[in-house]
Amino acid sequence: MSEISPEATATVAELAQKSRVAARELALLSRARKDEVLRGLADALDSAIARVVAANEEDLERGRAGGMPESLQDRLRLTPERVAAVGDALRDIAALPDPVGEIVRGSTLANGLQIRQVRVPMGVVGMIYEARPNVTVDAAGLGLKSGNAVILRGGSAAASSNRVLVDVMRESLSAQGINPDAIGLLDGGGHDAVRALMTARGLVDLLIPRGGADLIQSVVLNSTVPVIETGIGNCHVYVDRAADLDKALAITVNSKTQRPSVCNAAESLLVHAEVADEFLPKALTDLAGASVTLHTDERASAIATAAGVPFAVATQQDFATEYHSLEMSVGVVDSIDAALEHVRTFGSGHTEAIVTEDRAAARRWTTEVDAAAVMVNASTRFTDGGEFGFGAEIGISTQKLHARGPMALPELTTTKWIVEGDGHVRI
Amino acid sequence: MSEISPEATATVAELAQKSRVAARELALLSRARKDEVLRGLADALDSAIARVVAANEEDLERGRAGGMPESLQDRLRLTPERVAAVGDALRDIAALPDPVGEIVRGSTLANGLQIRQVRVPMGVVGMIYEARPNVTVDAAGLGLKSGNAVILRGGSAAASSNRVLVDVMRESLSAQGINPDAIGLLDGGGHDAVRALMTARGLVDLLIPRGGADLIQSVVLNSTVPVIETGIGNCHVYVDRAADLDKALAITVNSKTQRPSVCNAAESLLVHAEVADEFLPKALTDLAGASVTLHTDERASAIATAAGVPFAVATQQDFATEYHSLEMSVGVVDSIDAALEHVRTFGSGHTEAIVTEDRAAARRWTTEVDAAAVMVNASTRFTDGGEFGFGAEIGISTQKLHARGPMALPELTTTKWIVEGDGHVRI
Repeated sequence: MSEISPEATATVAELAQKSRVAARELALLSRARKDEVLRGLADALDSAIARVVAANEEDLERGRAGGMPESLQDRLRLTPERVAAVGDALRDIAALPDPVGEIVRGSTLANGLQIRQVRVPMGVVGMIYEARPNVTVDAAGLGLKSGNAVILRGGSAAASSNRVLVDVMRESLSAQGINPDAIGLLDGGGHDAVRALMTARGLVDLLIPRGGADLIQSVVLNSTVPVIETGIGNCHVYVDRAADLDKALAITVNSKTQRPSVCNAAESLLVHAEVADEFLPKALTDLAGASVTLHTDERASAIATAAGVPFAVATQQDFATEYHSLEMSVGVVDSIDAALEHVRTFGSGHTEAIVTEDRAAARRWTTEVDAAAVMVNASTRFTDGGEFGFGAEIGISTQKLHARGPMALPELTTTKWIVEGDGHVRI
Repeated sequence: MSEISPEATATVAELAQKSRVAARELALLSRARKDEVLRGLADALDSAIARVVAANEEDLERGRAGGMPESLQDRLRLTPERVAAVGDALRDIAALPDPVGEIVRGSTLANGLQIRQVRVPMGVVGMIYEARPNVTVDAAGLGLKSGNAVILRGGSAAASSNRVLVDVMRESLSAQGINPDAIGLLDGGGHDAVRALMTARGLVDLLIPRGGADLIQSVVLNSTVPVIETGIGNCHVYVDRAADLDKALAITVNSKTQRPSVCNAAESLLVHAEVADEFLPKALTDLAGASVTLHTDERASAIATAAGVPFAVATQQDFATEYHSLEMSVGVVDSIDAALEHVRTFGSGHTEAIVTEDRAAARRWTTEVDAAAVMVNASTRFTDGGEFGFGAEIGISTQKLHARGPMALPELTTTKWIVEGDGHVRI
């Protein structure tokens, strides 16, 4: 890869140095003060709805001129109601407990030293994301609550929206006596600016990419700053031979169709051969009835044909694909071992569900599947910070280091050991 | 950087695939079985002392022929007693609690879903380290106890020793009915083999480098596999104006001299100007008396001159240097703010100690210093898994992600969310 331009490196270094200063100040704020500031930001957004919507209209205008599909326009769009909802999300964050200062563990050692491991902010957290401008506010709010300065890098499609959202928040921070560099925007500079951010080692403590698989892979592979990989989800529903088929049907349809564009939607259905003839005609019919395009393996195709359900023959590539849309691959397996092997081959380590009434099968699934979340008799859609009761979510980690699964405020912190003695020396 | 050779990539991929198969088997072993196997490995090493010592003699012979310094020869040397001690360390690991299966948190959601976050093995853990062959056995033992397969890459200086140690352990695993690929050795292949290991993304779950700063930086900067950075330590002792100077003296000398070659030894002494005239003559005299070479700033140099203690004038570079030997930089600061700023500039985020009887100063230090461990009135040498009561240590993390400070068995695990329902779907 070519060298990063010195200008991009200097721009990011200057931005990050300011963020570091702000982060040191944020780390010292009390919970009460942070919550007050978050509510102040929400009020500022409420007062700036017209300004935000106008900036968003510029982005939408540019998008329409460039032929942006309606679904992407919808992701990008900020109506007055959506801006108000984004502000309310900040008030919700204010109401959550503060992770900073939590004592994770501690003890008094035999020699009398008192040690405790305490949650502290990471420092400077970079977010690289795509066209959803609500992420701009969410990330700033979660960062502030957890005592971190954030550097935001949104997609160029939302540039005007993000600029105004950040301006409004920074103005509010200043008015509230908080260093506005707590919320930094890396604006413009193209791909070189992103690369400079990914390699700002020692200046940026953590990078979280949110968006499509290409974005995330690029950040993971090219960063020297520590990264948390999020949201790659090739999730399966496995219907075991001991499944309650009514539950299996509800879970399959819900996992696929309740919100097909998100990472915890199921992309693939595996059915034990012993129940395939009974389960699949109904399941395929219901899925097709919910407008799901079916990619079926040989045995499932035969059942689809008999049931008069339209299908395409699945390739290996289909089983490897995250559709993020109303498409699903379907396979018949001869055993739970075959299902486990299939998930090992094609799964992305996000969420894997089994439907079974057999305790032994459930135990094997939860023990042997290597994923952030394993479900027994529940929809894959439950892997979610809000559903888990975290109250907020900055992403769903599909890596094993630091955080795995839904990430909320505690995952935006690190820890520090505080050791107190009375002149203790090591013998 | 040049491309990695296809041979190196293929060798590492083949090795790692075998490790992955072994890791899946290890993840299912009970604690009782793992402990039995660990004790079996210890017995096997006891029976192989002569064979290990003979292989180690080959390494030493090659080292001496190449002009290896005596201190490095000593690190490399395996006497019968040391091999026995390495075996005993495995028995100690067997006696530690098993982190796998520990429920970190859990709850029943409002809808009746039962969720719990459970510790599970990482999978395949790679260790890249230098000439200490005891790390080979320690890493294998800690890996096995935490349910991980390990891929070991030791320094070429210890090649014969490592080969025999791994052979002995793999033979013992086979004899005990365990897949010997639980302990893999990446032998030979030069730097290309290491690079292939660092980029074996998806095959290796975690890399831990142990050794000098150059090794660690190289691994951190060139890996696409998740890495935990360990053991860079530019540690300070700050003697506050409110310090008990007797405690300060004991802590300073202990932090510097108790074991100067390790990462938690202090490299730098900062003294508040108000106590410098009283404290430094005695401290510098005692340090010099313990054979410590002193690199003093202007004010400390004046005090050293008056006290008749030999010194060299410290450069900025001295304050940035981890000596890992009997050398120390010494500076006089005008305030705790200046000490904090100095630590921010030169510290490596490992261990930073204050000596003070002033609660406010201690509180500022523990709150504002950004490091894995902050000490109040205690030697920097206490940042250690053994001292903290962890019973074992695989390294000291100086990064903020996943683990910070001494890392033991829990840090070699990740977690998995297990979600159990009864046909639950998301509304």
